[in-house]
Amino acid sequence: MTSSDDSSKMKTSSEKSNNLLAKRYIGLEKSIWTELNALPIVHKAIDLGQGFIDYAPPHYFIDLYKETLDDPNIFLHQYTREMGHRRLVEAISNVYSPYFNRKIDPLTEILVTDGATQSLFNCIHSFINPDDEVILIEPFFSCYEPMVHSACGIPRYIALKPKPESIKADISSSSDWILHKNELESMFNSRTRLIIINTPNNPVGKVFTRNELEHIANLCQKHDVICISDEVYEWIVYDENKKHIRIATLPNMWERTLTIGSAGKTFSSTGLKLGWTIGPQHLMRSCRVVHQNCVISCPTISQEVVARCFEYELKRINSSKCYFNSISNEFLEKRDKFVQALKECGIKPVVPDGGYFILADYSQFAGDKFQSDTDDVKDIKFVRYLTKEKQLATIPATIFYTDDHHHLAENYIRFCFVKKDETLDKAIEILRKLKTN
Amino acid sequence: MTSSDDSSKMKTSSEKSNNLLAKRYIGLEKSIWTELNALPIVHKAIDLGQGFIDYAPPHYFIDLYKETLDDPNIFLHQYTREMGHRRLVEAISNVYSPYFNRKIDPLTEILVTDGATQSLFNCIHSFINPDDEVILIEPFFSCYEPMVHSACGIPRYIALKPKPESIKADISSSSDWILHKNELESMFNSRTRLIIINTPNNPVGKVFTRNELEHIANLCQKHDVICISDEVYEWIVYDENKKHIRIATLPNMWERTLTIGSAGKTFSSTGLKLGWTIGPQHLMRSCRVVHQNCVISCPTISQEVVARCFEYELKRINSSKCYFNSISNEFLEKRDKFVQALKECGIKPVVPDGGYFILADYSQFAGDKFQSDTDDVKDIKFVRYLTKEKQLATIPATIFYTDDHHHLAENYIRFCFVKKDETLDKAIEILRKLKTN
Ligand SMILES: Cc1ncc(COP(=O)(O)O)c(C=O)c1O
Ligand SMILES: Cc1ncc(COP(=O)(O)O)c(C=O)c1O
Repeated sequence: MTSSDDSSKMKTSSEKSNNLLAKRYIGLEKSIWTELNALPIVHKAIDLGQGFIDYAPPHYFIDLYKETLDDPNIFLHQYTREMGHRRLVEAISNVYSPYFNRKIDPLTEILVTDGATQSLFNCIHSFINPDDEVILIEPFFSCYEPMVHSACGIPRYIALKPKPESIKADISSSSDWILHKNELESMFNSRTRLIIINTPNNPVGKVFTRNELEHIANLCQKHDVICISDEVYEWIVYDENKKHIRIATLPNMWERTLTIGSAGKTFSSTGLKLGWTIGPQHLMRSCRVVHQNCVISCPTISQEVVARCFEYELKRINSSKCYFNSISNEFLEKRDKFVQALKECGIKPVVPDGGYFILADYSQFAGDKFQSDTDDVKDIKFVRYLTKEKQLATIPATIFYTDDHHHLAENYIRFCFVKKDETLDKAIEILRKLKTN
Repeated sequence: MTSSDDSSKMKTSSEKSNNLLAKRYIGLEKSIWTELNALPIVHKAIDLGQGFIDYAPPHYFIDLYKETLDDPNIFLHQYTREMGHRRLVEAISNVYSPYFNRKIDPLTEILVTDGATQSLFNCIHSFINPDDEVILIEPFFSCYEPMVHSACGIPRYIALKPKPESIKADISSSSDWILHKNELESMFNSRTRLIIINTPNNPVGKVFTRNELEHIANLCQKHDVICISDEVYEWIVYDENKKHIRIATLPNMWERTLTIGSAGKTFSSTGLKLGWTIGPQHLMRSCRVVHQNCVISCPTISQEVVARCFEYELKRINSSKCYFNSISNEFLEKRDKFVQALKECGIKPVVPDGGYFILADYSQFAGDKFQSDTDDVKDIKFVRYLTKEKQLATIPATIFYTDDHHHLAENYIRFCFVKKDETLDKAIEILRKLKTN
């Protein structure tokens, strides 16, 4: 080997060693979530950050789990069907068909996944070629944007904007946060492949109205765009007059909509990490290809458990006892209690119409102590302060926005209020003390 | 809107509708596995196809599962740490550190995944930029190749080749299947990013020798290549003299190896779909980015259960009762029984040194009834015939090979022999009858 050979090899080697992450993932290394999820543990803080309940899941959940483990069918411990365990896809079809106004084919129109997150991954990666555009509505669940990047797509952002008068009000509603119709229309073009919507929304709690969904639906049809509808909070809506509407049920939308659900959110057991995508066969076929080349299939026992939970609820689906109907009442009490406390403390709540979370404007409450600078945005600073110094963990709102739109969100933090009374009381006490200090 | 505008829109629309799968997935739509997994059910066939046991998992598995469900810690039902549930990564570190001759850092050197499959996905997608090359050794587990394609990498194939004399022999060994050293060397170049090895191997059962692994290790170091070592059958080795060797333990290989394991294979409960990657922090960091942007985190309960199973085994890890030690004896009896029967029927077994599977040459047994043609390769025809007409399901060997190398495999089918005696007996009966017909 000549020395010139050697040096060229050396160069190549160091090039490889210095490039330890595929380009399409570069920029995604830092996950503020990792820091935010760890903080409350380190600082023993009351956790109103993470999106889950801090009490037991529905009473039957563990019973049905154990019943499944007592089942002598040994095949429940081995691989199951790739698109989803037979009993689960049948249960999903039975539960959802009436809500979709059609018979959902359990074998071709449902794909069970490792959580709504993996459904999002499958849907986005199925359809995006380099430079295809995806419309994202801010604030959005944090994984939408990196998934578009890792598929080499181009995210196009449009923000829900609070009506000016609602920003000033001491209390406002998630329904004050709106999409400007013309602005939305201007986002669509011949390169637009997907739009992702999330209703009820995390973090703002907005439940999209029929009128808003119709506008989106018309644009999707006009521009031949597929709609990914993240509906993980589908059962959690607080106002009888603002029912959850599935965009897939609007005229001509079934064929171009992929609806995503989450067993973790549905049964208040986020540890399940089991989800599903529902949609027309010609789109599901593509999702299946991505799924099979990522995980192949999902865990059998948890699919069987979730199937049994759905069957349990299906028997009482029209009763107020059905968890899908009672969960909103359970959470509504918590929402109202917490909204009241925020108001009293001068932290201006955006009262959510649905979901787990409240955004609230802390800017008057905190005064000018926290200011955005080159290091960090002020809501992140405030959240770190609250967690570290006051033992109350929350989530900064700007992490649901792109950098360009931080100014829309930097006065807000997100509270998860689906916590037991004891937890809420402790959190409220901390806020009250802070106020009087 | 002018009419020319309109027609250009129409064109774009139909273009979009006709492209319902991202380009990097095109060609991956057909999964022969989906057909093969469904066939035995439809035809009520004895299933020696799929890779799992057809009897109960280790006795403590369900007990520990139920014990976990009885745990009053309600956080076991909610999201856990993104890189892996704390108790599980600690258990994995405790079990594996001695086998890796180093203390594995539970927090930075282990990533828990939704099965070894998702580990493979994370590892491959972390490091591949378009046109990077990945060396795959045929026969290989079917998902390696599509994962390289979906990452826009270029697979480079090299086949294990049976020694000519072993092909003629009535019985041969998986150790007769070898990599030609010069051929392997010629695969490496400045674009080579990864090599994927699988020891013990599926489907041939080969356990790579120290000498073979050293050759691979030297080439990886010389060309600055990362080695992904799929070791899901790590505990299943039949010959005391051919112990499982982890390539990560060879000199200078820790820094460039990602070792993959599977709870499903380890505890004979493939339905778990839980796996892990073990490797140095500078590589794991990249795997984490891909993981977080695919599923975020894995199910909590099953991680806790697997942690408890590992803890259970750790207490008796040096005893012959430890499942990791006893499993090979359990399966060895089955292997030998089945090898004997194959031999008697004139189906020439390649006796595996490890793993769940036997490849066997059926060409004399079947005569010239099955011939490869433009429709299908002859092993696939034979497998369909056996399943549909004789109610015995197996797997054709060519599906572990690229088209160009089908000629190396078309005389073989794969049997999974880790089945209860009753199943093996029924399968043997079918083969004996066929022979005398
Ligand atoms: C809007 C939204 N989509 C998806 C998810 C993820 O759901 P899963 O845990 O089923 O992956 C979440 C979790 O917080 C969410 O808020
Ligand atoms: C070699 C090999 N790797 C990986 C896997 C997948 O393992 P898991 O079920 O944990 O995803 C299998 C399953 O058959 C396999 O044979």
